[in-house]
Amino acid sequence: MNLDRNYLQQHFDFYKNQLLTDTIPFWFPRSIDDEYGGYLLMRDADGSLIDDDKAVWIQGRATWLLATLYNTVEQKKEWLEGAKVGVDFLLNHCFDADGQMFFHVTREGKPIRKRRYFFSETFAVIALAAYAKASGDKEIAEKAGSIFGKCIAYASGEIKLQAKFEDTRPAKGIGVPMIMMNTAQQLRETIGYPRCDEWIETWIKEIETYFVKDDIRCVMEQVAPEGSIIDHIDGRTLNPGHAIEGAWFILHEAKYRNNDKHLISLGCKMLDYMWERGWDKEYGGILYFKDVYNKPVQEYWQDMKFWWPQNEAIIATLLAYTMTGDEKYKSWHSQIHDYAYKYFHDKENGEWFGYLHRDGTIAQTAKGNLFKGPFHLPRQEWYCMQLLKEINF
Amino acid sequence: MNLDRNYLQQHFDFYKNQLLTDTIPFWFPRSIDDEYGGYLLMRDADGSLIDDDKAVWIQGRATWLLATLYNTVEQKKEWLEGAKVGVDFLLNHCFDADGQMFFHVTREGKPIRKRRYFFSETFAVIALAAYAKASGDKEIAEKAGSIFGKCIAYASGEIKLQAKFEDTRPAKGIGVPMIMMNTAQQLRETIGYPRCDEWIETWIKEIETYFVKDDIRCVMEQVAPEGSIIDHIDGRTLNPGHAIEGAWFILHEAKYRNNDKHLISLGCKMLDYMWERGWDKEYGGILYFKDVYNKPVQEYWQDMKFWWPQNEAIIATLLAYTMTGDEKYKSWHSQIHDYAYKYFHDKENGEWFGYLHRDGTIAQTAKGNLFKGPFHLPRQEWYCMQLLKEINF
Repeated sequence: MNLDRNYLQQHFDFYKNQLLTDTIPFWFPRSIDDEYGGYLLMRDADGSLIDDDKAVWIQGRATWLLATLYNTVEQKKEWLEGAKVGVDFLLNHCFDADGQMFFHVTREGKPIRKRRYFFSETFAVIALAAYAKASGDKEIAEKAGSIFGKCIAYASGEIKLQAKFEDTRPAKGIGVPMIMMNTAQQLRETIGYPRCDEWIETWIKEIETYFVKDDIRCVMEQVAPEGSIIDHIDGRTLNPGHAIEGAWFILHEAKYRNNDKHLISLGCKMLDYMWERGWDKEYGGILYFKDVYNKPVQEYWQDMKFWWPQNEAIIATLLAYTMTGDEKYKSWHSQIHDYAYKYFHDKENGEWFGYLHRDGTIAQTAKGNLFKGPFHLPRQEWYCMQLLKEINF
Repeated sequence: MNLDRNYLQQHFDFYKNQLLTDTIPFWFPRSIDDEYGGYLLMRDADGSLIDDDKAVWIQGRATWLLATLYNTVEQKKEWLEGAKVGVDFLLNHCFDADGQMFFHVTREGKPIRKRRYFFSETFAVIALAAYAKASGDKEIAEKAGSIFGKCIAYASGEIKLQAKFEDTRPAKGIGVPMIMMNTAQQLRETIGYPRCDEWIETWIKEIETYFVKDDIRCVMEQVAPEGSIIDHIDGRTLNPGHAIEGAWFILHEAKYRNNDKHLISLGCKMLDYMWERGWDKEYGGILYFKDVYNKPVQEYWQDMKFWWPQNEAIIATLLAYTMTGDEKYKSWHSQIHDYAYKYFHDKENGEWFGYLHRDGTIAQTAKGNLFKGPFHLPRQEWYCMQLLKEINF
């Protein structure tokens, strides 16, 4: 395959440098809560704390990040110890008596809110699994496995979670097979888990069969149980950045299976469809929501630029380029990379702003809140750096 | 009092004309659903239907509007018959078996979603009360009263609704005393209800005691049970347009009580505080959210311009001007009126766009969806027209 090795070398250097000298130092060590455990991550642009509450998703994600850096980049003691702080906080404060996890807790770990989803659980799984690999702690590994087992039961409907909607118009989302696929991939790459390949295959088939629509070149965010498009506002709403994240989970799986051709083709077409729909031709960047038939989207922030869809698109385009050699993907990677580091990166304080208006101006300055923390950006820089490290320049 | 009578005359003509030849004709008669009852209100800029679902809040609000026009503007048969269609749909399709109302139903009236609030109920109360007055239907009047009794029980906590948050950090919002006050005002002005004055006084005292902060010139959106500011992201978030709506509910009460001086002063200072915080000095218009200490607001659409805060500010500034003669309020009214009709009004198709970027460009074109319908704009035009009609030019 004819790849532009200069381009890849240059981006390897860039991502490595950004991750280790800009992104990670923004968050650590200052975010470790020495008093109550866990991390203090809700920070303004300059790093000052705007809230000492703790978002459970992000406690898990930050734990995963530190343990993963330890496992894959360098065995730094501070990263292992930092991950342990998160593991303890998750296990001691983030589970309700019924076994479900909370979504939002106080600094001390008292519950504020529980939600009707199990994403806190999936992030706890990858956190515990990565830490178990780093530390060799068998008990933590078992705990990760048992929470994952519970996630499978939630995902399959074997354990029923409280419903948000009545039964009139059943729907299913791409989010569940996506997150489950990626969680299983993480488990497989850290501590192992029985039948991961089989589970992953099931979730990929679910996505391919029900959510990918070749006739209209689209990946749906939700569909009716048998896969038809629900022609109402919510059912029509697309999330291009999310679908593009799904695309790279599938390309990652293709690589794991020695460049499985069918999966490369599936991942690339998901990327193609949603780049076409999500890339803002006027201002650059990936838009948040689109309507499948271009009708008005109800979610107010639909045409804003959030940080994470850009991160997912940077990974997906780079993976697609390195796996296919297709110049189109190199060009897309170059466009999204240049756009994102120009508009989102905070040259003064490090890390990225999270929320831009459509035209690239900053809508608000927080680096961390209930929904943003050290995850999508450092994961992107880490993933791209690891991917490029494998390639012989 | 020395009022600018030319100014008032000119705005009376304008609001009357807009309401009757622009806003109402956008919605009616085309939105009446002859097949299933209720209204089809989810429409794009040109009036084309984008979804045939029905938002229960807005079914109630549209019913209220039609009955109120009949009661106060002209006894048009089409308005009375139009209101009846909404009343029937509300009573036949919008109540769950447990007596709570739904939030979102299908065109046929099958339930999609129920929420943990009782705002569907308060809008049903004003709809039924206005219709009962218009039609003289005693049964409907009784029904309105009995639903209002239930709202009082929800508001006081006598009937517990499912909680969204755990008990760790109790909070109360200004929304409940505000909506209850306005619902009681409507009831009193249509069919009467026992002890309305007393209830209204209680809710005003609640707002004045706990939510209005003179030391920092602010009206809080939520506070701890004893009134302290909850110094976390959610607790710090202000909603200037909502507080300004509360200000005019109180000015309206002041007028009902023969220009009660204390209430005029309370309403005006609420308006002053939140105009100072909410008015966008750069682009004009009322911003959606602000942080009490000017920290970053988490809600993504915080600096967008929505239609309804502008409607509420138009009413509040006009009421304040006509009740005090203070030129400051005339100037504010003129600013917000000119801004809003310039940027929100759709000169081509009538009615207003709902969602603008901070700079006044249109973010999306829908005139109606799950959250927007024929309410804030026609209520503003109707209220201002009625207010100015009383004044002898």
